Amino acid sequence: MYNQAIRELNPGGFILKNNQFAHITISGSQKITELRSIGYLTPEILAKKTLAKTWRELVIRAFPQALTISSQTEKLASLLADANTDLLTYINQGNFSVTAFYNVALQLLEFLPEIDFNFSNPIEAMEKINLPYITNISTTDTLLSAWYDLLCTHTKNGQLLIDVLAANGFFVKFYGKVTQPLFFNGKALPVFNTDKLIREVVYVESTLDTDKDGKLDLLKVEIIRPSETNTGLKVPALYTASPYNQGTNDEDGDKLMHPMNVPLSHKIPNNTTYDEIAYHSSPSPLPNPRVPAGITKEASETFSREFSYTLNDYFLARGFAAVYAAGIGTMDSGGVRTCGSEDETASTVAIIEWLNGQRRAFTNKTDNIQIEAWWCNNAIAMTGRSYLGTLATAAATTGVAGLKTIISEAAISSWYDYYRDGGLVVAPCGFPGEDADVLALECFSRKKQAGDYLSVKEFFSKQLQKITAEQDRTTGNYNSFWDARNYLKNIKGIKADIVMVHGLNDWNVKPRNVYQLWNSLKELPIKQKLILHQGQHIYVNNFRSLDFTDMMNLWLSYKLYDVPNNAAEVLPDILVQDNLQVETWHSYKDWDSNEPAQNLLLQQHELVPENSELQEGAANFQDHLNEEDFSLYSTNHALWKEHLLQVENSPLKNNRLIFKSALFEEEMLLQGAPEVTVNVSTNKDHGLLSFMLVDYGNKKRFKPVPTTLARKALNLGYHWREDDLTEFTLDKETPWKMISVGHINLQNRTSLWKNDELLPNTFYPVSVKLQPTFYKIPKDHQLGLIIYATDMRMTVRGNEEQSYSIQLAESKLALHLTKKAGSKK
Amino acid sequence: MYNQAIRELNPGGFILKNNQFAHITISGSQKITELRSIGYLTPEILAKKTLAKTWRELVIRAFPQALTISSQTEKLASLLADANTDLLTYINQGNFSVTAFYNVALQLLEFLPEIDFNFSNPIEAMEKINLPYITNISTTDTLLSAWYDLLCTHTKNGQLLIDVLAANGFFVKFYGKVTQPLFFNGKALPVFNTDKLIREVVYVESTLDTDKDGKLDLLKVEIIRPSETNTGLKVPALYTASPYNQGTNDEDGDKLMHPMNVPLSHKIPNNTTYDEIAYHSSPSPLPNPRVPAGITKEASETFSREFSYTLNDYFLARGFAAVYAAGIGTMDSGGVRTCGSEDETASTVAIIEWLNGQRRAFTNKTDNIQIEAWWCNNAIAMTGRSYLGTLATAAATTGVAGLKTIISEAAISSWYDYYRDGGLVVAPCGFPGEDADVLALECFSRKKQAGDYLSVKEFFSKQLQKITAEQDRTTGNYNSFWDARNYLKNIKGIKADIVMVHGLNDWNVKPRNVYQLWNSLKELPIKQKLILHQGQHIYVNNFRSLDFTDMMNLWLSYKLYDVPNNAAEVLPDILVQDNLQVETWHSYKDWDSNEPAQNLLLQQHELVPENSELQEGAANFQDHLNEEDFSLYSTNHALWKEHLLQVENSPLKNNRLIFKSALFEEEMLLQGAPEVTVNVSTNKDHGLLSFMLVDYGNKKRFKPVPTTLARKALNLGYHWREDDLTEFTLDKETPWKMISVGHINLQNRTSLWKNDELLPNTFYPVSVKLQPTFYKIPKDHQLGLIIYATDMRMTVRGNEEQSYSIQLAESKLALHLTKKAGSKK
Repeated sequence: MYNQAIRELNPGGFILKNNQFAHITISGSQKITELRSIGYLTPEILAKKTLAKTWRELVIRAFPQALTISSQTEKLASLLADANTDLLTYINQGNFSVTAFYNVALQLLEFLPEIDFNFSNPIEAMEKINLPYITNISTTDTLLSAWYDLLCTHTKNGQLLIDVLAANGFFVKFYGKVTQPLFFNGKALPVFNTDKLIREVVYVESTLDTDKDGKLDLLKVEIIRPSETNTGLKVPALYTASPYNQGTNDEDGDKLMHPMNVPLSHKIPNNTTYDEIAYHSSPSPLPNPRVPAGITKEASETFSREFSYTLNDYFLARGFAAVYAAGIGTMDSGGVRTCGSEDETASTVAIIEWLNGQRRAFTNKTDNIQIEAWWCNNAIAMTGRSYLGTLATAAATTGVAGLKTIISEAAISSWYDYYRDGGLVVAPCGFPGEDADVLALECFSRKKQAGDYLSVKEFFSKQLQKITAEQDRTTGNYNSFWDARNYLKNIKGIKADIVMVHGLNDWNVKPRNVYQLWNSLKELPIKQKLILHQGQHIYVNNFRSLDFTDMMNLWLSYKLYDVPNNAAEVLPDILVQDNLQVETWHSYKDWDSNEPAQNLLLQQHELVPENSELQEGAANFQDHLNEEDFSLYSTNHALWKEHLLQVENSPLKNNRLIFKSALFEEEMLLQGAPEVTVNVSTNKDHGLLSFMLVDYGNKKRFKPVPTTLARKALNLGYHWREDDLTEFTLDKETPWKMISVGHINLQNRTSLWKNDELLPNTFYPVSVKLQPTFYKIPKDHQLGLIIYATDMRMTVRGNEEQSYSIQLAESKLALHLTKKAGSKK
Repeated sequence: MYNQAIRELNPGGFILKNNQFAHITISGSQKITELRSIGYLTPEILAKKTLAKTWRELVIRAFPQALTISSQTEKLASLLADANTDLLTYINQGNFSVTAFYNVALQLLEFLPEIDFNFSNPIEAMEKINLPYITNISTTDTLLSAWYDLLCTHTKNGQLLIDVLAANGFFVKFYGKVTQPLFFNGKALPVFNTDKLIREVVYVESTLDTDKDGKLDLLKVEIIRPSETNTGLKVPALYTASPYNQGTNDEDGDKLMHPMNVPLSHKIPNNTTYDEIAYHSSPSPLPNPRVPAGITKEASETFSREFSYTLNDYFLARGFAAVYAAGIGTMDSGGVRTCGSEDETASTVAIIEWLNGQRRAFTNKTDNIQIEAWWCNNAIAMTGRSYLGTLATAAATTGVAGLKTIISEAAISSWYDYYRDGGLVVAPCGFPGEDADVLALECFSRKKQAGDYLSVKEFFSKQLQKITAEQDRTTGNYNSFWDARNYLKNIKGIKADIVMVHGLNDWNVKPRNVYQLWNSLKELPIKQKLILHQGQHIYVNNFRSLDFTDMMNLWLSYKLYDVPNNAAEVLPDILVQDNLQVETWHSYKDWDSNEPAQNLLLQQHELVPENSELQEGAANFQDHLNEEDFSLYSTNHALWKEHLLQVENSPLKNNRLIFKSALFEEEMLLQGAPEVTVNVSTNKDHGLLSFMLVDYGNKKRFKPVPTTLARKALNLGYHWREDDLTEFTLDKETPWKMISVGHINLQNRTSLWKNDELLPNTFYPVSVKLQPTFYKIPKDHQLGLIIYATDMRMTVRGNEEQSYSIQLAESKLALHLTKKAGSKK
């Protein structure tokens, strides 16, 4: 009868394996210094003459909730030193041993006797769970060193022990007394009182007049900063640019969704070159800036609750400010939304310029009273996922001063890769019919304030029509509109170091976005880090198996406070979550393999090695479905996908071709972007091909969405916000898993901007790079390639009487398969 | 690309219909008094000479985040008074109109122009959405009255406007200045500073020694109270007894789960009477109480984060304390878990006695320093769901002084109805194999502290074996063990008023539990209220369509602060959520209909009216499945249920009988507990029957779990905790919906404690009451009755070669169907 959420704490009996990439190695003397700095090494402790007595004092301080000696003593008695002796008795008898030390350590780390470890051999469990330990603790120094390490170790519930102490009030004694952040093991500690955070609104004056009202667009900024900034502390800013955070126009957006059940049209062949469609910026004259009528240090507006990112929340207790801005066209700001244009980039950057002292802000829209970011140390990082991470990437390409790093999660690097693919309209999975215009309207939250909206309604309506026209759903080609929204073009401008996070199963913002960014950045003299997880379009800062939050603390302490923690070397370049083993991560140096690609060739129903004897011949499929099936599949995409991938007796067996490899003789890693080449003809003057790469074999795979292990278990400070602890757990056995996809318009064989000829019933060679991946194919599984046309989830669905023919002997799949599986940590 | 959670704000375009049952009608002068008391009616406002100017002042105060006149003025300009005029301009021109007033009101209530209402006729929308309004606002008094009503109206996001203002800081000016709670429209306001809440731990000495350690069991209590209690404020206590709140032993519980794939056994016929199995309490001698060594007002232990119920959180800002205790056998307390025994009741009640000044507590387990609940006004309510609500019910049956009311949600009223049914082991749905012993072990969180557990390990192990034996999974009969855990026996002791909440689709704690409680309570001179929702085993305090939190505020202000708000009459006796229309609730006077039951008779595949011509004959089914199907269905219960209910071509067509009524000519309400009578024989000396009542007909029905409309949208105070806003939305079309279930052991035809003879191949009449319901069957749907034996989800699964035969002419379904559908609010 107990709560389902509680039951899910241990849904599949999966193995816990601790991964801490942000734990840095420091000297014994530095450990002592740090323990002293947090008040852990009082003269009282240092005066103790025996290991037992010192140990007692250390353990007692792990219970800040016990306020008297009796209460503290009871806490000691609640722990066991060995299978038969409680810690109080053990210590009172003057005992100390390494085994007892780690028995107690494991209990403090929330591991369970009998279940997670045995009192007879705690070291075995420390080893298995991958927790740091010292085998020889014989002096006060080694005891303190081991204790220091323990404070820097994750509990079973995914937080550092020192953060658990913090959540229980350990650092309350520092409140109001610190003038600088405190760092421990290279990471900032929560010593700032979050009950006293200051919240203020300012309006930054941009260099834009996107609503053409004759005034420079003002941009609303929400700032949260520690109250200690009022008395001299200067803090870095974690800035999140989120077009969603002032609300969204969901009903309007839904109405604007484009119909997907429309046919593909023939494109008149042409010889368009990139130069003809390249976007060039054409600045228009701007209104004069406002003339300040005064200056103040105090804001005239506050707010109660921002639309926050829990990672920012975590840093608010640690000596960082959080700054949120939604940008042009959002509620309380000026301007209009443009969906990823250079104006949105400028709007994003304006806030950084203000934070860095190079742009004006005002307390309101009326009085022209200037207000500076006088509390900021001019070191700025950007955070956020999806559109938020996209704008962080966009801002970075400008090389704006003050922006030291961005943590860009599930970000778009080119909007063409979000709403288009291969000369086709290809919707982000889950959002068929959405396009740049829909998103612009969605985020135009000025509409939510009717009084403000009135003045901009007509202009915005025209602006939206312009986006609708320019995004060009008719051809699906790459054009000036999309070129203006391709951040990869401006990659050379980047000066900030970049941390990228992306889901290998993100079919909303597809992996190609981060793959292209990673590869482009390699040319630049910056540091870049990449984390690839097995999720979809999600955040990873609350995973149990990865100390992402600690890693970002290490990184931001280094980048924004210049803490010499060696973060750039300590953090792995690429971290990839294993797709077979839960709670397992591997580090790599690069995404692409540097081995040459292997080819698998297409034969009837088979993928065969390159040296195989081939049979000539073509395989055919049709695209058309009867009305009933078409209606069913256009709405039930899960069923469609299930039937498409079903090998035997599939209702869609005439609508696709399946090619399967032999059983894999051993586990292999598929790495990078596989490429399919086919020789294809169709009976029309237009057509498309879609591809899926599939892992065939019965297996318990990861659930698509992480399981909540414990609700609100992650404390972001003392009496402060909380987050749920999550982790991927195994699902019921499934017969297959889609690895990657690809799409192409048969008239875009040459490029994304040029229309090729397509004569009916004529064969053409077509090559398509599928979405990149890191995927382990288990032993005894088969790799499958599915070729089909209409993708119910993403492409338009014309349901025409159309057939396709593939010449097998001239078709192949090129990919990188290796036996080495990355270095395990 | 925007967040899925945001998209879900409007998942099915469903109609919003505001339901407020806690809005009370008060006089105009009382409204003025209350507006004055919250500082809304300043002399500044009252001095205004025109409606326009007064209105301006009222609206400005709805933006406490605007700190200067310029900022406030900008907020006015952001609202529209009519389609073409912003509010600032409109008021500056000296205008006022009822239409403009409600245009602004709807914007403040977060409704959207063009989508939810039109500026030309806001009253039409107020009417449609069911929002209160006044058509004639021509004086300051009527304006204030309309404004008062507006503050008491729910926004589109499910909170009172005054609570939205509170979340934006409106009541910060009261912080530290109030000596008593403030009430508005009969409900307490959030005028207490939650940043300053006091958290303390005490240990209540019970009258139990359940672990036989020679000391009375001490019970840990976590208390959170407003800091104003330190300076004289006395507050009521909202007490939640949650055996889960100190952690659970999930891994151990999972290991103890009982096998379900075991056969039913023959029970030796007997003539056992209730008197023979009735439980009688036999008190054993107790150790002496501790001798206090002193007394203090200060606790020696605090805590950081309790396992809280958001309803309690909400009251913490409003002048109530929250009190959590997990009871005997939980972490930091003495004793052992017993799963619902009278010891657990006494353990629950001990906390109330302490709160009411009639029992001792100590600051820790060592020093015997006494501490009183000196901050409590001796008025106590209990809250919580599931086991928590169960213990509230248990406590109420003792008639303990100080307990004024309980809000018992999804509570067990007799543990037999939780783990057994009709002489069978019947697991709560979703937890096959769980039993009283498993739950006792689950909740025995003393095990989580190894040092404490050591001393009680052996005793608890024996205690657990005793529970395992006494719960008797062999016969499934009602015995002394279950009689000791039947709170309905002690119903006459209840003095507290009771609010009950239960899901009509709760197959974990099944609806019979609340049905029997409701019916038993009718004899008592107490007030009882019942809310039946369409969910499963969930809380309802974050629904958009029901002002449950306001209702409980009205109720608890009345019960615990004696506020004369007439709550007992204002709140409906029974509120039932409509199962066809989203966001619709009906009130009723009683659960059972007072009309005589109708009979439907069983014919081959049909349910026919009583006056039909009947055909003699039997219908047969077998219970056995082949190994493969058995293995599949015993783990995939969803698939089993789907196949069981599938009418045509079901793989289970030989394993069950289906009887379907004619198409309903109009919508009918099925009310109360339907009863099935059959004449049955089987080929063994043991057997069981299961029944499902089903609504057949294609329809978009409610999703089983509420949809999150907006994450963290419910503010429980200013900078305080938050809750997600949820609501039931419509799912994809489904062909059927299970309405109710029933189970019986064929050897328990006479009673739950007596074994009847069962000769193979002999017909016996059997009657079974199914779980009670309120269910509307739509026009053109059919009512279906399914008769089968093994219930894969709940009963044991012997998979024997067993067949059953039903004599149709001697079988019937008795039920209450009416055309009236409850009074709509």
